[in-house]
Amino acid sequence: MTSPSTIAEFRAAFEARRPDPAALAAELVDHWEPDDEHRVWIRRLEHQEIVAHIERLIEVDKTSAPLRGVPFAIKDNIDLAGVPTTAGCPDYAYTPVRSATVVERLVAAGAIPVGKTNMDQFATGLVGTRSPYGAVVNALQPDHVSGGSSSGSAVAVKLGLVAFALGTDTAGSGRVPAAFNELVGFKPTRGWWSTRGVVPACRTLDCVSVFTQTVGDARTVARVAGSFDEADPYARRIALQDFDEEAARIGFFDPYELPHVDEGYRACYADFVDRLPGEPIRIDHAPFLEAAALLYDGPWLAERYAAIGCFLEQHPEAFHPVTRRVIAAGNNLSAVACFRAQYRLAMLKREVERAFRRVDVLALPTVPRIYTLGEVEADPFGTNARLGTFTNFVNLLDLCAVAVPAGRCSAGLPFGVTLTSPAGFDFALLNAAARLLGEVVD
Amino acid sequence: MTSPSTIAEFRAAFEARRPDPAALAAELVDHWEPDDEHRVWIRRLEHQEIVAHIERLIEVDKTSAPLRGVPFAIKDNIDLAGVPTTAGCPDYAYTPVRSATVVERLVAAGAIPVGKTNMDQFATGLVGTRSPYGAVVNALQPDHVSGGSSSGSAVAVKLGLVAFALGTDTAGSGRVPAAFNELVGFKPTRGWWSTRGVVPACRTLDCVSVFTQTVGDARTVARVAGSFDEADPYARRIALQDFDEEAARIGFFDPYELPHVDEGYRACYADFVDRLPGEPIRIDHAPFLEAAALLYDGPWLAERYAAIGCFLEQHPEAFHPVTRRVIAAGNNLSAVACFRAQYRLAMLKREVERAFRRVDVLALPTVPRIYTLGEVEADPFGTNARLGTFTNFVNLLDLCAVAVPAGRCSAGLPFGVTLTSPAGFDFALLNAAARLLGEVVD
Repeated sequence: MTSPSTIAEFRAAFEARRPDPAALAAELVDHWEPDDEHRVWIRRLEHQEIVAHIERLIEVDKTSAPLRGVPFAIKDNIDLAGVPTTAGCPDYAYTPVRSATVVERLVAAGAIPVGKTNMDQFATGLVGTRSPYGAVVNALQPDHVSGGSSSGSAVAVKLGLVAFALGTDTAGSGRVPAAFNELVGFKPTRGWWSTRGVVPACRTLDCVSVFTQTVGDARTVARVAGSFDEADPYARRIALQDFDEEAARIGFFDPYELPHVDEGYRACYADFVDRLPGEPIRIDHAPFLEAAALLYDGPWLAERYAAIGCFLEQHPEAFHPVTRRVIAAGNNLSAVACFRAQYRLAMLKREVERAFRRVDVLALPTVPRIYTLGEVEADPFGTNARLGTFTNFVNLLDLCAVAVPAGRCSAGLPFGVTLTSPAGFDFALLNAAARLLGEVVD
Repeated sequence: MTSPSTIAEFRAAFEARRPDPAALAAELVDHWEPDDEHRVWIRRLEHQEIVAHIERLIEVDKTSAPLRGVPFAIKDNIDLAGVPTTAGCPDYAYTPVRSATVVERLVAAGAIPVGKTNMDQFATGLVGTRSPYGAVVNALQPDHVSGGSSSGSAVAVKLGLVAFALGTDTAGSGRVPAAFNELVGFKPTRGWWSTRGVVPACRTLDCVSVFTQTVGDARTVARVAGSFDEADPYARRIALQDFDEEAARIGFFDPYELPHVDEGYRACYADFVDRLPGEPIRIDHAPFLEAAALLYDGPWLAERYAAIGCFLEQHPEAFHPVTRRVIAAGNNLSAVACFRAQYRLAMLKREVERAFRRVDVLALPTVPRIYTLGEVEADPFGTNARLGTFTNFVNLLDLCAVAVPAGRCSAGLPFGVTLTSPAGFDFALLNAAARLLGEVVD
């Protein structure tokens, strides 16, 4: 039997070995790299910890536990009870008594946590290199960046170590690593999945996200993870909505007008648009990209300072130097600029609402290009900023999104597309994405 | 015949005199003070301007025009086409080509605009004295303040000059003058009535409001004024909701625990609570009053600077000295403080949601007390701040509210109560208020 990689395969493997928790725990991890050459992990669970989780499951009813026996990884800014949360900063670590709400829900559904993953420190970065635990190695192209900030979670899934892995996604951290490692990366509607027990980056925008092998697996996780959580001040009662998935109207940006896109990715995206079914509709990219610039240049950076500024003032040496510089800048912004940016964003939202009257789904390149490790080292700020061109605006504009693989460009580099829809259309979006990828939609 | 004062009375007067617009126009204004001793107006419409509005109405179908022939006044921070908007600052004046959306809707329903009213400059104040056009005189107690910032609109209604008058209400400007002049002051759910064509104060919080003689008249205006306006970036598609008005669960604060309340008003409020029907439910005032303090001490002040800071820097001498000092302080706030206050507010909203699971309507004193003109002059900042104790939190917490008269205290001063409910319960709230006041609910 080949190693399992999807939720169904991991479930089947669990059912086959269920009577022997210790053997199953060993099997779950025996194909892992002993020295973690990809630098996926900040903390792997001990054998005995995994056995304890499995033993708990033996009594759990199969029908009420859709994830029974499915191993998953957790980005290290999301709490797992009894295991330190570092957010990629060892000096910041604390050991939570309680797991994050999302983790609690997944565990209650039978999933087995197996470790906490490496990340761009404080979820600030889209590159995957800003970690004192070392840069996470791209699963496909080791000389290129793995993408961040949820880099370890993405690579854990790509290597088949787990069936799915939780990330977080404020500006693209759950989508960029999916593009660079040929995975599905789903970022639900803001406020649908609880952020209680997650280290905040930009509290008004933060989402928990998930990496999977298939769109269907993202849907399975979403069914468990999504639920209004009164304990999360930014949770929302999301009224889930549908559009006609079989006849979804798909929008696209003009491939030849997009900034920062390299020629390989431009050709890939143009080719993707050409192959879209039906009659795709061209959408003006201007309001989207202006919103993206608001996030990067604008006052939301102050939220990162609001989250950990006090710690930064007391422990500047604890930070990755790039991260420190980014977050410290958040303390220099004025409330007036903050409100002015919010006003501009409110206007842009109206334009985007009009665009989404014409289409159900907008299909974009996830990133404009991929960088080598050397390119990021030479210009850590500029490369990172450009990577967010097509991801930064999604939470600001209150959209849900799923990043999916879309082939390779001529240089052999992985190319990804993100499909995005307005808040609340999460399942319709996932179903439309599954159809586009040729997955069976149940 | 006595002078008309309600919408129905003004309508009847119009129908009786309709064939003669010039006579009707004369009749509408012939009982006004020639010298405007109450300083209600910044700009009264000329006789010929009113005649033109009336002539337009003769062709309007009565059934499609529920306000046909009903005169109304407009606070001078709301645009009326062709008439200058000053926001209480002559040097700021501009002449709009188009009326505010709310004014357009009222005029289309047959209402007759007759003038622009005096106000606390830039809608910054709850006192009614911060105007270069002079302090608006309280219609009942000329030695006491009239309340602001929509002071002229309130007094125009109390004097019977118009059937209703538009105000604005960010922190209480549509409720405090209602309390001080024994009127109904209705502040709808934020985003339900358009704010296009309104000079912003705090753009994320601003509402247009209305003063009327009866709750029923406020409901009539609301039926016309409320509608989603795509041109207003802060407009919302409000799903209007109901509760059982006949069995409305009414909440109150402990009268003996409230800060800043003088003994006369405390006795009035305790008496009001005693006379409430059914079994009123005590609600903890703490989260409400903490939210109120956030508005007064917090970063929302930066919105006032964002709105007119550039004009202030160029024309500091154009400002009322108190207004200038308040607004200039808005430029000293940080974006970090702004987000931290938003986080705290999000937590408080959860507590308030829980309170509104126990009650449909919360009944509060509109203001803790009334001040004399001399008291406000002696301490313009402190008096103004205390007046907002029970009004500041309403927009921050996303509530709708109606201020209603509730008798006189032993010193003969008018006492008012505000009834408030969560967003979207506007009509249910108005119906519950009408019942409490003994009005017939249609």
